[in-house]
Amino acid sequence: MSQDLSLQKFGFIKRDTPRTVNLDPLQTGGLLTPEAREALLEWGDGYSVCDYCGGMLDQIKTPPIFDFVHKSLPSFIGMDHARVTNGARESKFAIMHAMTSPGDWIVMDGNAHYSSIVAAQRARLNVKLVPKTPAPDYKITPEAYAAAIEEVKQQSGKPPALALLTYPDGSYGNLADAKAITNLAHDFGVPIIINGAYAIGRMPFKGKDLGADFVAGSGHKSMAASGPVGVLGVNEQYAAKVLQKSPTHKNKEIEFLGCTARGATIMTMIASFPAVVERTKPESWEKEVSNARWFSEQMESIGMKQLGDKPHNHDLMFFEGTVFYDISQKTDRYFLYRELKEKSIHGIKPGLTKNFKLSTLGVGREKLGFVMDTLKDIIKKYDG
Amino acid sequence: MSQDLSLQKFGFIKRDTPRTVNLDPLQTGGLLTPEAREALLEWGDGYSVCDYCGGMLDQIKTPPIFDFVHKSLPSFIGMDHARVTNGARESKFAIMHAMTSPGDWIVMDGNAHYSSIVAAQRARLNVKLVPKTPAPDYKITPEAYAAAIEEVKQQSGKPPALALLTYPDGSYGNLADAKAITNLAHDFGVPIIINGAYAIGRMPFKGKDLGADFVAGSGHKSMAASGPVGVLGVNEQYAAKVLQKSPTHKNKEIEFLGCTARGATIMTMIASFPAVVERTKPESWEKEVSNARWFSEQMESIGMKQLGDKPHNHDLMFFEGTVFYDISQKTDRYFLYRELKEKSIHGIKPGLTKNFKLSTLGVGREKLGFVMDTLKDIIKKYDG
Repeated sequence: MSQDLSLQKFGFIKRDTPRTVNLDPLQTGGLLTPEAREALLEWGDGYSVCDYCGGMLDQIKTPPIFDFVHKSLPSFIGMDHARVTNGARESKFAIMHAMTSPGDWIVMDGNAHYSSIVAAQRARLNVKLVPKTPAPDYKITPEAYAAAIEEVKQQSGKPPALALLTYPDGSYGNLADAKAITNLAHDFGVPIIINGAYAIGRMPFKGKDLGADFVAGSGHKSMAASGPVGVLGVNEQYAAKVLQKSPTHKNKEIEFLGCTARGATIMTMIASFPAVVERTKPESWEKEVSNARWFSEQMESIGMKQLGDKPHNHDLMFFEGTVFYDISQKTDRYFLYRELKEKSIHGIKPGLTKNFKLSTLGVGREKLGFVMDTLKDIIKKYDG
Repeated sequence: MSQDLSLQKFGFIKRDTPRTVNLDPLQTGGLLTPEAREALLEWGDGYSVCDYCGGMLDQIKTPPIFDFVHKSLPSFIGMDHARVTNGARESKFAIMHAMTSPGDWIVMDGNAHYSSIVAAQRARLNVKLVPKTPAPDYKITPEAYAAAIEEVKQQSGKPPALALLTYPDGSYGNLADAKAITNLAHDFGVPIIINGAYAIGRMPFKGKDLGADFVAGSGHKSMAASGPVGVLGVNEQYAAKVLQKSPTHKNKEIEFLGCTARGATIMTMIASFPAVVERTKPESWEKEVSNARWFSEQMESIGMKQLGDKPHNHDLMFFEGTVFYDISQKTDRYFLYRELKEKSIHGIKPGLTKNFKLSTLGVGREKLGFVMDTLKDIIKKYDG
């Protein structure tokens, strides 16, 4: 196409990551369904969903965005209202920005994703982190949460403007006692966001049942959608504030700058939605949890320790141990990545050997067995 | 997949809009190149670009995001620094939010896109619109711009915190005298954003040559990328402010919440980039302008009046006249949409007959001739 030499590195680029087995916590829940792959090509062009738009993305009847956003999605996440956003972090920022003023306080769990903290910083809030319990549990307890709210009260003279709970967190896959924590936040009069970026689309999740006033979810992380795309849930009590419309442009919601996911992103989310509903049913999720626990036991049998909740209740797990680290001391730190790549197993970050996280979501017992066999073979090869 | 009846409307959905000829101003610049369609499938999975990410999206070497964001893109948009964002409106909000405090004033042209106004409202700014000249020109003059800045000075005691110019605007495709307007903004000490959502990726554009301190561009509108995706440009003077990093997470930029376009969106932008560079070369753009002018003349020959700049300098044009409206009075207001759909011509909004906008970008003289023949046939059919 172009004669310009500096442009030759662009254009279509192959993705060379081996992906026969994918254990990347960022990726297992975002792998597209066949329906989503079809939707990508069908709706990939810019502004494709706007063919019949009368001015509000969420009101589009063809394709059925209205029904998705106003009927199925609120019911799926168990909240009064839902919107599709550009990602979980964008949902969190929109909520924080709408609900607070610069200088206000937000309390969040010490396992919070960095993007929750950065969103709070962007909203110019003061952040109080709830300390987690020491290794190896790293739990967020209601008691510690209450203490953090008390501290803010004492420090600033009033309760924090907002609270946030990560459910589960992205490091250990820990599921805190959400109900107890939202209850106590409400006892202090503090509305609370549940960041369900690793829950919504993976496991049964109903925001209201957990006591959430707001929820954030991620399409590309956990709803088999092509990102950036996320969901935002808000209950009636705070809907007017979060979904406020422009005073000059009556059909444009301010926090979403009028509209958000305009093309392939929302259409892949809709394409995968029936499959996502299916995989989040209790009986599907129980199988996933059982696979995760089996994998955790297997890993412990080769000398790696699983941190966080035990027995584990989520596909995302953190492992620590010296078995691979010791080998890396004799070879190099990339040996594990290389050996796994050789078997087309992806997901443990290049260079990590002593501690790493991974996800077993949707991998299935057979492939998880293959991973374990591979890991055992690697140990044999280097320790032999 | 799912047995749930209410889910049957979701899954993969066909797009039924006829698209042999597409004149939709929102869509002509966002149609994917063949390379981008390949990239969609290759990188469609959530977080696909993060395989080799060390914590900063713009620093990823494989695929060559670093080279794109830090070398090719700044040179392409003619600015010191560039970032890839979730869209032009997100770029504008990020700039406004970083550069101002709530209650500050922003001056923008009266042809500004609604999302510029909503972005300013989200940043809690006061907006002063520069009036446009009366019909049929709707021009933004430097004199009117200076007067608006003066008004803000008198009203608030100081110059506005920021200014914005839409170049070209999305209603008339008018290209204001950007150089004169940025110069006078600078005379008042006001930094200025050029919203190039309909320029960057369509026509030759160098932000600095136009005197911009910041620019916003749209991937899905004008860079043949699958959205939501956009670009942000900033010059050295304001880079530290707009690209400020989190005090706690040293490699995360606050206004982008850490990272933005994570998968197919940035990769389709990169895939189309060589073709986009090609189509924005002066010789390519001259052909587009010549096609637009030819189409404008043809439309005037059947009784429609082209508003805005004349002769026209952009592919986006606004037409007004009663020839189709008169027919709609005898039939119904959807006749024009129906008749064009019959010939697989898309882009004039359903129901519009008296005034409508369209874009001739990339359509080519032959297909534009087919559109004109079709319009003449429609007139004959109903007036006969």
